[in-house]
Amino acid sequence: MSAPINVTVWNEYRHEVTKEAIAAIYPRGIHGAIAEGLDTTGKIRTATLVEPEHGLTEEVLNDTDVLIWWGHMAHGDVQDDIVERVHRRVLQGMGLIVLHSGHFSKIFKKLMGTSCDLKWREADEKERIWIVNPAHPIAAGLGEYFELPQEEMYGEHFDIPAPDELVMVSWFEGGEVFRSGCCYTRGSGKIFYFRPGHESYPTYHNPNVKKVINNAVRWAAPVDREYPRYGHSQPLETIKGNG
Amino acid sequence: MSAPINVTVWNEYRHEVTKEAIAAIYPRGIHGAIAEGLDTTGKIRTATLVEPEHGLTEEVLNDTDVLIWWGHMAHGDVQDDIVERVHRRVLQGMGLIVLHSGHFSKIFKKLMGTSCDLKWREADEKERIWIVNPAHPIAAGLGEYFELPQEEMYGEHFDIPAPDELVMVSWFEGGEVFRSGCCYTRGSGKIFYFRPGHESYPTYHNPNVKKVINNAVRWAAPVDREYPRYGHSQPLETIKGNG
Amino acid sequence: MSAPINVTVWNEYRHEVTKEAIAAIYPRGIHGAIAEGLDTTGKIRTATLVEPEHGLTEEVLNDTDVLIWWGHMAHGDVQDDIVERVHRRVLQGMGLIVLHSGHFSKIFKKLMGTSCDLKWREADEKERIWIVNPAHPIAAGLGEYFELPQEEMYGEHFDIPAPDELVMVSWFEGGEVFRSGCCYTRGSGKIFYFRPGHESYPTYHNPNVKKVINNAVRWAAPVDREYPRYGHSQPLETIKGNG
Amino acid sequence: MSAPINVTVWNEYRHEVTKEAIAAIYPRGIHGAIAEGLDTTGKIRTATLVEPEHGLTEEVLNDTDVLIWWGHMAHGDVQDDIVERVHRRVLQGMGLIVLHSGHFSKIFKKLMGTSCDLKWREADEKERIWIVNPAHPIAAGLGEYFELPQEEMYGEHFDIPAPDELVMVSWFEGGEVFRSGCCYTRGSGKIFYFRPGHESYPTYHNPNVKKVINNAVRWAAPVDREYPRYGHSQPLETIKGNG
Repeated sequence: MSAPINVTVWNEYRHEVTKEAIAAIYPRGIHGAIAEGLDTTGKIRTATLVEPEHGLTEEVLNDTDVLIWWGHMAHGDVQDDIVERVHRRVLQGMGLIVLHSGHFSKIFKKLMGTSCDLKWREADEKERIWIVNPAHPIAAGLGEYFELPQEEMYGEHFDIPAPDELVMVSWFEGGEVFRSGCCYTRGSGKIFYFRPGHESYPTYHNPNVKKVINNAVRWAAPVDREYPRYGHSQPLETIKGNG
Repeated sequence: MSAPINVTVWNEYRHEVTKEAIAAIYPRGIHGAIAEGLDTTGKIRTATLVEPEHGLTEEVLNDTDVLIWWGHMAHGDVQDDIVERVHRRVLQGMGLIVLHSGHFSKIFKKLMGTSCDLKWREADEKERIWIVNPAHPIAAGLGEYFELPQEEMYGEHFDIPAPDELVMVSWFEGGEVFRSGCCYTRGSGKIFYFRPGHESYPTYHNPNVKKVINNAVRWAAPVDREYPRYGHSQPLETIKGNG
Repeated sequence: MSAPINVTVWNEYRHEVTKEAIAAIYPRGIHGAIAEGLDTTGKIRTATLVEPEHGLTEEVLNDTDVLIWWGHMAHGDVQDDIVERVHRRVLQGMGLIVLHSGHFSKIFKKLMGTSCDLKWREADEKERIWIVNPAHPIAAGLGEYFELPQEEMYGEHFDIPAPDELVMVSWFEGGEVFRSGCCYTRGSGKIFYFRPGHESYPTYHNPNVKKVINNAVRWAAPVDREYPRYGHSQPLETIKGNG
Repeated sequence: MSAPINVTVWNEYRHEVTKEAIAAIYPRGIHGAIAEGLDTTGKIRTATLVEPEHGLTEEVLNDTDVLIWWGHMAHGDVQDDIVERVHRRVLQGMGLIVLHSGHFSKIFKKLMGTSCDLKWREADEKERIWIVNPAHPIAAGLGEYFELPQEEMYGEHFDIPAPDELVMVSWFEGGEVFRSGCCYTRGSGKIFYFRPGHESYPTYHNPNVKKVINNAVRWAAPVDREYPRYGHSQPLETIKGNG
C-alpha cells in the first residue's frame, strides 16, 4: 500500500557528524535512514539544520504533505521564524511526525503548549511497545507489541496534552511506562509523536519502526479541503435584534 | 457549596475606562463584576494591565488557585515575561478560566498551540447555550440550556485543540454554532474556556453566567499533589543490558 | 479517490413499502439510494429486515468491510442473535455507519452503552451542519458547512458517550444544536454516527450527504492487522516473586 | 477532605466464603474492607449477591450516590433486571466504581459496549502504577507511582472504549502494561475503572489503593442538576418552513 504523499525528513544532523559511533550506525544520517525506509510514491526530500533556512523554505514546505522531525542537541539553534513557518503550515494541514528527542523541539512545544518534559535514562535497556488501540491505522500490520532490545528510557509523567488518540504504550526494563504513540489534531493538521529513536541505537533500521513511520505518514497526510475562513462574518439567517 | 479557593480576576480594563457605555454596564470594571459574583470563601483579588507586572507578581500568582482572564483590545500590551510566568504556574497546577475575547490572549494561544481564530459578528443577536455533558461539574445547577438575549456571535470553525471535555455548545440566531464551554488539562493545571462576555452587554451580571464561572472555579482548583519530577532518573528495576 | 471496500447497506425497509410518499422519494428504498451513491470499487450489497437472518448471515458479514445501518420503526423486530453477530464483527474490525434514527437501533445502543435518547421534532425545518474538525478525513471535500433545507430536528442532550472525535455540529432553525458527526472506536472496529436522513426528505440524494457517507466508509474500513489475543498469558520477562 | 456522599459497596462475596486463605485476608469480606477504608461522611452500605435483589433495591440505589462493584466468579449469577436497574441509575447520575475483575461484570460490559477482555496471569508479580494525568482529582495525594508487591497481571490490549480521561498506567514485572485508572462519563453518570484488587492479595488494605478509591468516590459523585428531557420537543424559535 502506497500513496503519492510528499515527505520531507528533517534532521539536525549533529550527532552523526561529530561522533564516529553514531555515524557508523547512520552513515547517511538519521534523515537518510528514515528517508530510505519510506514507501511513499511521492517526493521524498531531506533537510538539515546547516542548510539555508534549515532547508525548510516556503517552497519546500508548501510542497510537503508530511514533515518528519528529528532533533536533540541543537533545538536552540533552530531559528524562531522557521519554527513559526512550520507551525503555520501544520495548522494549514501539513502533517508532522515528531520523533524521540524531538519532544523538546521548539515546534513540538509550541504545538503542544506544555513543557513536554519527561524522565529519561541511557542504560541500554529493553523497550517493549504495546498497541493499545488496535483499530488505529498507525497500528496496521503490527503485532500486539514489538521490542527494541536497547533504547534510551523515556518515562512518565510525560508533560503533553492528553493525546486525541493514544496508540502505543511502552514498557521499560527499568520499571517505567510511557505514552509512546500519540496522535493530535491541531488546526487542519495532524501530528504524531513517536517515542523511539535514540541516536546510539539502530532503531530506524528496525522493520517495525519503519512500519510505524510509514503508517503515520499516511495517517497524517492532509485532507483535501479548503482552509476555513476566520474573522468577521455575515449572518446566514435574519437577526431580529432583541434590544 | 463553597470552598476556600483563592481567585484572581485579571482584566485588561480598557473598554470600561475609554467608553462611557461600557462603564455604565460595568462601573467597577468587568473584573469587578466577576469578582462580586464569586462565591468562594478564599481570597478574591483583581489585577489589571496598568498595574506593575500587570498585577500578576510571583507572589500573587503563587497565592492564586484559579486565575480568571478577560482581555480584548490590549492583548499585544501584555508583557511576554508575565505570560511565561502565568504559563509556568498553570503547568504547575493553577487553574485558568479564559473568557470570551481572551481566546486571542497570548496565554491562551500559548497553552493551546493553535491560532485560536474563529468567526465573529456584533449584531445584538440571541445566543442559546446548550449543555452537552450533563454529568460535568461545570453544568451543576444549570438547566438544559440558558439564553443570552444579546451577544456577540462567535462561530465555527474555532481553531482550538479538541477539548478534553466539551460541556457547552452555542446556537446563534444568525445561523452559527460554537463550542462554548471547553475543558483542558495542561501539565498539572486545568483550563476552562467560556465563550460569553462581550463588553457591551451585561453578560457577567447574568445569573447563569455567574453560576458557570463559580462551577468552573471549583473544577479548575488545583489538586493537592507534589509536582512530578522530570529529567534524569535512576532505574527502579535491575537492567540486564542486552548488548 | 476510491478503494476496494466491501460495503453492505442495511435498511429495515418499512416506510418505503407502506407509505407512497416515502416510496416516491426512495423508489428503490433508502438502502438502494445509499448504495447507488457509493463510490467504492469493492462489493456493494444491500440487506433488509424481511430477508432470512435480515440478510446479515455470517457469510455476508465476514465479507463486509463496512456496514451501513438505517432503521426506525422496526428496531424491536431485529433479532437479538443478529445484533450479537454484528456486534462481534464490529469488535473484530468491521466498520459501522449508523444513520439518523438508527441512534435507537439495538446495535448502536449496545455499542454505546447509553440510552442514545435525544430531542426530536418533525417541522420541515432547516438544518445547517458545521464542520468542527477540519483535519478529519470525513470532512474531505466539504465546505465549512452544508445545509439541508428541510429535515427532522434532533436536539441535545444526545445521550451518547463523548465521541472519540467530533466532526460535525448541527444548527437547527427551531433553536437547537446537535452533535451530528461522531466517531468512535470500539474493539478493533470504527463507528460513525451521522445524523441526517429522515425518510420523508430526499436527504440521501444530497451530494454533501453522499460525500460524508463515502468519506466515512473509507475512514471506517478495517485496519489490516491480526486480532489481539486475550486470556491467560505467559510472562515475557522473568518474575522474581516477592512473596 | 470529606463530603456527605452515600456509598454502597457491592461484592459478590464468594471467594471469601469458600476459601479460607481469602477469608484470612478479608475476614469481613472485600466489601467490608473497602467500606472500612471510606472517608465519606455520608451513609455507607454494603450489599452482596445472596441478598434479595442482590441488596440493590430501588430504594437502596435511589439513596446511593456512588456504587462500588467487585465481582469475579459469579458474574453470570447477577440477575439481568438488577443490571438494568443499576444501568438506569448510572445514566441518571449515580457514580460507579468498577474494581479489578469487575471488568467482566454484566454492568461494566453493558456500559462500555465492548468485550472488556484482556490478558491475565496469576504469578505473584510486582505491579507499579504510574500517574499519567497529574491534574486529575483521582490522583490527589498520590506520588508519581505506587507499587503493589504482588498482584495478578492484567495486560493490553484491554478491550474498552478509549477512556474519556486516562489517569493511571500499570507496569508489570512480567513485561506488560495496562490502562489501570480509566474515567468515563455515560449519560449523567460517571464511571471509574480501577485495576488492582485480586482476592488473594491484601490490596484493599493498601493505603494508596484506599486513597484512589476515596478520590474516585468524590470524583464520581453526582452533579446536582435536573435530568435532561428527551423526546418530542417544541421549537424555541419560529420555523418558516422552506417547503
